[in-house]
Amino acid sequence: MFSLDATDSMSSARAGCMVLPHGMVETPVFMPVGTQGSVKTLHPAELEELGAQIILGNTYHLWLRPGHALIREMGGLHRFSSWRKPLLTDSGGFQVWSLGKLRKIREEGVHFQNHLDGSKMLLTPELSMEIQAALGADIAMLFDECPPYPSTEAYAAASLALTTRWARRCKDWISAHDPRCGAGRQFHFGIVQGSVYADLREQSARALVDLDFDGYAIGGVSVGEPESEMFRAIENAVPFLPHDKPRYAMGLGTPPQLLEMIARGVDLFDCVMPTRLARHGVAFTLDGPLHIKNLAHANDPRPLCESAHPHVAGFSRAYLRHLFRAGEILALRLLSFHNLHFFLRLVAGAREAIVAGTFSDYKDSFIRRYTRPPFP
Amino acid sequence: MFSLDATDSMSSARAGCMVLPHGMVETPVFMPVGTQGSVKTLHPAELEELGAQIILGNTYHLWLRPGHALIREMGGLHRFSSWRKPLLTDSGGFQVWSLGKLRKIREEGVHFQNHLDGSKMLLTPELSMEIQAALGADIAMLFDECPPYPSTEAYAAASLALTTRWARRCKDWISAHDPRCGAGRQFHFGIVQGSVYADLREQSARALVDLDFDGYAIGGVSVGEPESEMFRAIENAVPFLPHDKPRYAMGLGTPPQLLEMIARGVDLFDCVMPTRLARHGVAFTLDGPLHIKNLAHANDPRPLCESAHPHVAGFSRAYLRHLFRAGEILALRLLSFHNLHFFLRLVAGAREAIVAGTFSDYKDSFIRRYTRPPFP
Repeated sequence: MFSLDATDSMSSARAGCMVLPHGMVETPVFMPVGTQGSVKTLHPAELEELGAQIILGNTYHLWLRPGHALIREMGGLHRFSSWRKPLLTDSGGFQVWSLGKLRKIREEGVHFQNHLDGSKMLLTPELSMEIQAALGADIAMLFDECPPYPSTEAYAAASLALTTRWARRCKDWISAHDPRCGAGRQFHFGIVQGSVYADLREQSARALVDLDFDGYAIGGVSVGEPESEMFRAIENAVPFLPHDKPRYAMGLGTPPQLLEMIARGVDLFDCVMPTRLARHGVAFTLDGPLHIKNLAHANDPRPLCESAHPHVAGFSRAYLRHLFRAGEILALRLLSFHNLHFFLRLVAGAREAIVAGTFSDYKDSFIRRYTRPPFP
Repeated sequence: MFSLDATDSMSSARAGCMVLPHGMVETPVFMPVGTQGSVKTLHPAELEELGAQIILGNTYHLWLRPGHALIREMGGLHRFSSWRKPLLTDSGGFQVWSLGKLRKIREEGVHFQNHLDGSKMLLTPELSMEIQAALGADIAMLFDECPPYPSTEAYAAASLALTTRWARRCKDWISAHDPRCGAGRQFHFGIVQGSVYADLREQSARALVDLDFDGYAIGGVSVGEPESEMFRAIENAVPFLPHDKPRYAMGLGTPPQLLEMIARGVDLFDCVMPTRLARHGVAFTLDGPLHIKNLAHANDPRPLCESAHPHVAGFSRAYLRHLFRAGEILALRLLSFHNLHFFLRLVAGAREAIVAGTFSDYKDSFIRRYTRPPFP
């Protein structure tokens, strides 16, 4: 399902291609997040217009509402949400973990209180796989435990042992059920944990590779650790992952971080940052983030960014600021569209540069301009 | 600026054409409302896709935020909001009137407290015309006073006398300034008042026609009166308005009301109903309004309506209900788009029927199905 088209000579960056039941995905790729079956504010036709190749759905949210039984009855998440291209679902593990005091981690799974109605629920590895099979994602993620940052080595090791036992239970469930997704079989990615401990990351990667999955994610990153630790977590895992399988860094990152991760051999990314910050009035530009609500933009006739998509480029910063101040939904739409365009183009551009053999230049010149101090 | 293409033999319905500085408008026509420089939730390209020929902007809201001086500096409301086709602005009179106890009506104008910051402000006929000239609307409305329902004949008569004196002041301002809009001159519509009193409606219409405007609106309708009074207000005004000028019923109405008004010789309509009700989960269908949040739609795979636009028709009622319950903005977009499509198609269909000589059939068969009791 995965083949490599090109590798960079100066870094671990690579250009590949995944063939999934709902189509082909060229990597590196950025996946917009559609938490509740909708990439916030956007129409699926706009995502296609933006060149999104694969989007992410959240198992936890869709399980609680509207429920995986309903989505299965409506023909799966693709048909339910009118998204025709590949879909990846997470396992729900990170969401229940994020509930903090409302959840308890036990051998059998995670006991938690439903954030919608407070009822007591249990999510297990088997149930996570069953829900993801019902949703019909092209790629389902294994159910894991994400240790917090910071964690002691003892805690991280015990947590990793649990994640590994859960991975075996997921594998058993998959083998027993052989879930399908449209015309093909569903693919499954294991998740490397191990916190900041290099030997644990290696141990986790080796154990998952022994179980043989279709791809491997690096989890437990972007949980409050310094950026250097985030890069190190990737560097500690990648050498033990097979060259011929896709690698996915979960929940990342800023535009420069994406390029740094690509340079370290990562193929897939997802992040709510472009859409979430859009709803708070932050637009990404080649010169760094722009806060549209600032007074400085009140009478600025320029578009958000020289690289803005034509769908957004016709609007001045002054107008966008007005829409935000007036609470108009069009503001949220336009900035969400713009930011996803920015992230998707950034990663698509990285792929083109890897193929052309110019990735290091691409990365360095982007980061130099993006992180340049503002004009005094 | 206005010519008649066809008149109906069985009613006062007519098909006409307005030539305005930013393009041609075929009537009868429904105008989507863009209160703050945005038709709520929609992109201007979507309005064009829907066949909107002219939209409305609100002088009161745009004056307070972002201010007409800024909009003038940014090239006018067309350029500011990226809307290329004709625009109509109201006078702000109805909005300040709606402030209730926060406003005082005096000979010079309306004193009121700004709803955004509570500051004391004064809107006069001259200032309303000046703001609308700065916004650069194709059609500007005269500043009027709208009597409440019910009003005594004495109150309505005194209010009408004020509206007529204000109309003269507006006319004087227009003559002195000759405001332009893009390549052509701005057009101006007078507003017939007179509450439920036939002689006052006649007197108002005659006084405005004496002053000679480009079109005439019927105001003071849809202010809480019974539907029969609303129709009577139109019937009491229309006979005294020139055949060769467009007629505009302000702030109306339900789908059956639009057809009833067209049958009574009205050419222009505006109403927030399609977009406002959309945001509350109401979709218009050929069988009447549908409340998408109802449990009945939870697993309904059908689209909203057999006449839904392709942009919306791909989504099931079950999915739209899920989006609403989950608070997803896409729900507001899709229902707003759908409802505007419904209203625009309804009125465009009425025009086609007038031209084809089948308007009575069109109206009767629509209303029969729309108002039919629900299936038991």
